[in-house]
Amino acid sequence: MVSVPELRIQCLCIDSNDPDRLARFWEAALGWRRTYEEPDEVVLEPRAGSPEDGVSPDLLFLRVPEHKQVKNRLHLDLRPADQAREVERLVSLGARRSSVGQPPDAPWEVMADPEGNEFCVLPPLPGGDG
Amino acid sequence: MVSVPELRIQCLCIDSNDPDRLARFWEAALGWRRTYEEPDEVVLEPRAGSPEDGVSPDLLFLRVPEHKQVKNRLHLDLRPADQAREVERLVSLGARRSSVGQPPDAPWEVMADPEGNEFCVLPPLPGGDG
Repeated sequence: MVSVPELRIQCLCIDSNDPDRLARFWEAALGWRRTYEEPDEVVLEPRAGSPEDGVSPDLLFLRVPEHKQVKNRLHLDLRPADQAREVERLVSLGARRSSVGQPPDAPWEVMADPEGNEFCVLPPLPGGDG
Repeated sequence: MVSVPELRIQCLCIDSNDPDRLARFWEAALGWRRTYEEPDEVVLEPRAGSPEDGVSPDLLFLRVPEHKQVKNRLHLDLRPADQAREVERLVSLGARRSSVGQPPDAPWEVMADPEGNEFCVLPPLPGGDG
């Protein structure tokens, strides 16, 4: 019998200079809900009743005094139904297009959230609906 | 009607100097499976048939030339059934206990993976089984 580790990913923690503001961006970006809120800590969870609810890692924004210095070693790739539309929507929410040296013809869009954390918006799944 | 963003988290990307080696650690740590493998890129997905399968973000290890320089802005919190046992197991897999200035009596254990990426092993859920 193969032993399965009794260890799961509970959350992805994101250091932040302003957890409330940064969480507000991701809340709108993903359509997630705020389930915990203190001045130094905000938790977002997937929509209640969605497949991700209680399964996918939560997002936890933690206040830190230091600012982002270098390109993050960890970043999220997001899968849209419509890449161009989502990129525009994310810009309207406070993200910006970014460059980390990706090829000019890369099919993914590199962006940065309001605190400069890089993330990518992938092309839609071929033939899929997101 | 509230509009739900058609945008989901596809994967968490982790810059790595040795994707094969780093993925091997996380594969064993979480009991996930390797579903894509190139010299510069390795993908891990949750166990087939697990609640996370096809729902939780995959882990994607990407080769980069630069080394880790500062504390990561993003890190994973892991939820164990037995904290002490999992910490020992993770050490045996190549992780180490780490310090990022956490309080000495913090109930979570700060660790670093074989490339120094910080993560935490939380206490078990009260009354829960992980």
